[in-house]
Amino acid sequence: MPIPARVLDPPFNITRTSHVVLEASDLAASRRFYTEVIGLVVTLESDEALYLRGVEEACHHSIVLRRASGAPACQRLGLRVFTERDLERAGETLARLGSEVRAVEVAHQGRTLHITDPFGFRLELCAHMPVEPRHITRFRGQRGGSALRIDHFQLLTPRLNEALAFYMGLGFSLTEYIAKDDEHIRAVFLQRKGNPHDIVLFAGDGPRLHHVAFTAPDAQCLLRACDVAGEIGFGRQVERGPGRHGPGHAMFVYFRDPDGHRVELFTTHYQVIDLENAPIRWDPDDPAVAYPWGLPAQRRWYEQATPMADTSIAPALPRPNPMTLERFLAERS
Amino acid sequence: MPIPARVLDPPFNITRTSHVVLEASDLAASRRFYTEVIGLVVTLESDEALYLRGVEEACHHSIVLRRASGAPACQRLGLRVFTERDLERAGETLARLGSEVRAVEVAHQGRTLHITDPFGFRLELCAHMPVEPRHITRFRGQRGGSALRIDHFQLLTPRLNEALAFYMGLGFSLTEYIAKDDEHIRAVFLQRKGNPHDIVLFAGDGPRLHHVAFTAPDAQCLLRACDVAGEIGFGRQVERGPGRHGPGHAMFVYFRDPDGHRVELFTTHYQVIDLENAPIRWDPDDPAVAYPWGLPAQRRWYEQATPMADTSIAPALPRPNPMTLERFLAERS
Amino acid sequence: MPIPARVLDPPFNITRTSHVVLEASDLAASRRFYTEVIGLVVTLESDEALYLRGVEEACHHSIVLRRASGAPACQRLGLRVFTERDLERAGETLARLGSEVRAVEVAHQGRTLHITDPFGFRLELCAHMPVEPRHITRFRGQRGGSALRIDHFQLLTPRLNEALAFYMGLGFSLTEYIAKDDEHIRAVFLQRKGNPHDIVLFAGDGPRLHHVAFTAPDAQCLLRACDVAGEIGFGRQVERGPGRHGPGHAMFVYFRDPDGHRVELFTTHYQVIDLENAPIRWDPDDPAVAYPWGLPAQRRWYEQATPMADTSIAPALPRPNPMTLERFLAERS
Amino acid sequence: MPIPARVLDPPFNITRTSHVVLEASDLAASRRFYTEVIGLVVTLESDEALYLRGVEEACHHSIVLRRASGAPACQRLGLRVFTERDLERAGETLARLGSEVRAVEVAHQGRTLHITDPFGFRLELCAHMPVEPRHITRFRGQRGGSALRIDHFQLLTPRLNEALAFYMGLGFSLTEYIAKDDEHIRAVFLQRKGNPHDIVLFAGDGPRLHHVAFTAPDAQCLLRACDVAGEIGFGRQVERGPGRHGPGHAMFVYFRDPDGHRVELFTTHYQVIDLENAPIRWDPDDPAVAYPWGLPAQRRWYEQATPMADTSIAPALPRPNPMTLERFLAERS
Repeated sequence: MPIPARVLDPPFNITRTSHVVLEASDLAASRRFYTEVIGLVVTLESDEALYLRGVEEACHHSIVLRRASGAPACQRLGLRVFTERDLERAGETLARLGSEVRAVEVAHQGRTLHITDPFGFRLELCAHMPVEPRHITRFRGQRGGSALRIDHFQLLTPRLNEALAFYMGLGFSLTEYIAKDDEHIRAVFLQRKGNPHDIVLFAGDGPRLHHVAFTAPDAQCLLRACDVAGEIGFGRQVERGPGRHGPGHAMFVYFRDPDGHRVELFTTHYQVIDLENAPIRWDPDDPAVAYPWGLPAQRRWYEQATPMADTSIAPALPRPNPMTLERFLAERS
Repeated sequence: MPIPARVLDPPFNITRTSHVVLEASDLAASRRFYTEVIGLVVTLESDEALYLRGVEEACHHSIVLRRASGAPACQRLGLRVFTERDLERAGETLARLGSEVRAVEVAHQGRTLHITDPFGFRLELCAHMPVEPRHITRFRGQRGGSALRIDHFQLLTPRLNEALAFYMGLGFSLTEYIAKDDEHIRAVFLQRKGNPHDIVLFAGDGPRLHHVAFTAPDAQCLLRACDVAGEIGFGRQVERGPGRHGPGHAMFVYFRDPDGHRVELFTTHYQVIDLENAPIRWDPDDPAVAYPWGLPAQRRWYEQATPMADTSIAPALPRPNPMTLERFLAERS
Repeated sequence: MPIPARVLDPPFNITRTSHVVLEASDLAASRRFYTEVIGLVVTLESDEALYLRGVEEACHHSIVLRRASGAPACQRLGLRVFTERDLERAGETLARLGSEVRAVEVAHQGRTLHITDPFGFRLELCAHMPVEPRHITRFRGQRGGSALRIDHFQLLTPRLNEALAFYMGLGFSLTEYIAKDDEHIRAVFLQRKGNPHDIVLFAGDGPRLHHVAFTAPDAQCLLRACDVAGEIGFGRQVERGPGRHGPGHAMFVYFRDPDGHRVELFTTHYQVIDLENAPIRWDPDDPAVAYPWGLPAQRRWYEQATPMADTSIAPALPRPNPMTLERFLAERS
Repeated sequence: MPIPARVLDPPFNITRTSHVVLEASDLAASRRFYTEVIGLVVTLESDEALYLRGVEEACHHSIVLRRASGAPACQRLGLRVFTERDLERAGETLARLGSEVRAVEVAHQGRTLHITDPFGFRLELCAHMPVEPRHITRFRGQRGGSALRIDHFQLLTPRLNEALAFYMGLGFSLTEYIAKDDEHIRAVFLQRKGNPHDIVLFAGDGPRLHHVAFTAPDAQCLLRACDVAGEIGFGRQVERGPGRHGPGHAMFVYFRDPDGHRVELFTTHYQVIDLENAPIRWDPDDPAVAYPWGLPAQRRWYEQATPMADTSIAPALPRPNPMTLERFLAERS
């Protein structure tokens, strides 16, 4: 499949990744993890839900954790559209494209549409949220990684090519991709807000949420998040890193939250607004893509992910076969 | 004057601050300053001009220094529009609004319009530039402040209210402003690209360019830029800071280049895309606006600025009377 | 006066700068300043005294603040000797050299000698303190500058040459000094613990304590201390910096505590143990000594200091005439 | 075996870890690694040897690499004594204790003794070296990890208890140790210069050099060293970390040089001079000792080390059985 052309005048204006709604079995443990290690700010909490936002965010929430029993799933992937008019057009367009679209009332955000995309991802679109003061200069309250704002989702789907075409049709721009050639794509990095990603799609069993990513102010914050994790009993939740990405160029670290949801903290993304930036292709066999230095990610980083609520998972064929830490160590000895 | 309403569907799409063209008396000295202290990358150089870009920038240039004799002026303030179609509409719209518009050939950038806005600022609009590899992961070559990308201009004009209305009419969004009340505005912070500023306007003798600002990766880079400045004979060019801004919340440092042009390096801007973010008003009499800690800026920071080439300067009335370092020290002793 | 020779086998072993005892008019304000801005840890507090130590310190205190009315003075400058036997020898030696020596009981430290040196500095020597857990890996509790440990005192005396000879006679090593030539010394940097300073002496009205200095983990901590100062109402207490020293090479920032006592946070000192390191002379007329970049210190940084309790102050002749910020600004305009 | 008592008045004064002499098969590759990644400064180079020192070091060398064919070994572990008189006493004392002692001429250092200690470690003692300017404020020349100075050696020996007694008899102070109880010691951290280590001894096949460690200015330098390693083809030489130590509390990263010699960069050591600091015991079964967060070290970090030149290696009994990365991954799956 050739890479689709960029759509300059999409049917509606998605502005950015907005928020994620995750299920949690123990809100107190989640609160501790997200505030102390990741460094998010609590906007609101109840027995049933915890609303968090980044240090610089004014919007009401970028993560919502809802108390649930059973295997914790992802309830919704939130995207923002620019205006209420864009929201209307989104509903019309996506329904026409065959997605299930439903207008719903959701507490603490404006008029909202629930949409299940053709690949099973449960989206949630809105144009407004209540605002709160930004904590960017409340230096004393900053904790752990001082996560500034939500940046992107990484999603797994067995239907990568179709998903790429679908999201580019909605106006997403492809910044980078991992592919042996344009027929054999493993991963695509798609953006709306002018930096490398809002949605990253990897070929894999899905639909699943691989991780949600927050921007941190600098690399020291990544290390401080790890140190605090070790201090308060989350040391084994540091799953990968700190390390450096190939695509996107970011310095990163990955954590697993108390329910196993994966969270990335990263720095150093670049601005990419201009049309002359052609998508950058990375060779999946080049170790510098996955680990420019140090060791590859352990197998569970590749294989484990959060399912969408009430959604069955289809296998990816052929099976991805990345260089895992386990294989790396075995092959070398 | 009430703050104008935000224009959601502007006549053409300005995407961001793009570049600045400055005159320089000694290109070798300028090269040394911009590469070693600020940390920019040389894209191209000749006897007549030096083209520089930030460490993460792919576009050909974000500063152009042109050899000139006489008092060094600012030749052009560059803005990007999204598409060639936007460029056409820009020309039509601005001509209709009474600006002088001229299609020109400019080396190393796409089709370009030269526009003098109603306040005397010499703009330059284009939709394309040649691209070069980003240096973001060329760690060994990073120098001084490792300036990542151009972020904004700060401009001085005696006609602040009119300029605010003009630029908001072109789709700029007001994020913050300094004003005793909405009738007495001293400064406005305007953006297109989703962070606090692309163009900052202060009331003052003008039209003049107060400074051009580049984003740095973290606060240590600001300090390293100062240290390198001291090491190579530019120690007296550190004019203000490191310090913390009120509006925009950034950590900053200001340098004067070898011709006296002012350059800011800063970190920690926030993302501001959503419509629910109302402009934030700052009280000009609150010291936390100008110096949340430490000492105020010296008088020359307030008073000196780069003129527009071939453009006369009109005085601002009433004269701004900010708390300068000189006044602060005198009043306290 | 030629620089005295280093004494390799001193009569007793002073190991390091240990602590300082300062008077405070409002212990609650002092607590807030030292814990939130400087980042010290409270070991013990009462209505009468506040005992603080650095994040990595195990000893009971490196600053003691004692409630006092009247102009706040410095009660004691604490030095550590290695063993109890060294303490005995210290008493004998200093008494023989004409200092007043008195054995005293001091809470929360071992056997203690009160000594007034020939220049009026009120010293306090001991070989032991109770120990507390180091907080070095209690990351969550770290605040402001995360001050790690006390490093040195800077003292003012009109009898600099004599004081240099006296302290070198006790085994202090001269690492750096500021002098037009060896006859006209303005400042000396003396150490025992293997880094550039334990005691710094400047020519000036004295005996007075110019500042006490704490080591911070890195330059970002200096900036965070400033930011927190601004946040909690101590923004005007940032008196100088952040900046870079000539002698000692440190990155620094100076604060005034709520009683006006001056505290330095700094990074980047070097190790200096070996005998082959000859003292380094700095030319007082070289601006790089006092401000390698940026602006000079304001006059009050040079002129104001904490008196020793119950001790009269003698003027330095000739008067020091350093380049102050006030003079710098006046001469340039 | 009970922990030996600290010797306060040792027969001679060892002041610090001084330098290491390693064999290298390709000096150009070593130069590239040590200057670009670790950030050392070249003092002198020839076809036969490369002399390097840290950014803040004045002494002529802290690593010497000598060209050699065959399996690269460690020729000498350098220690400094304070005075020439200490050097004489060192020779007398060590000969009396049964070590082989030989006075030798060594280029670029003062009078030198070659000593093989009872455990087969090839030591080299001297009291002087030529001095060079410190590069601490040559900011432009700083590379990679900006290694400041040599800090310590980590050594492997099957005779750990005896080696502990021997080195404490020479005046080394035990700061921390890893032991199930005082009879079953796995590792000891010994110091002379007032921070946690100069010599670290682990039970293991030996005598071997596990690593030489350099202090870096801050945690960002550790990450920059990794990034540069990845950039210039040494990405697979990042063997462990960045991570956090239990004992010593340091943030660390370990590299293998082009010949497989292991080098640590670390930050955040504490000062430990006072006698009241009792040795801290760590439980070897507590994961927080070896990996407070993240993953354990791979097996080769535990098992591979540099032999002493011309010295046979004796096995440690019982075999150490630490939690390796390989075992950790296997046990969890």
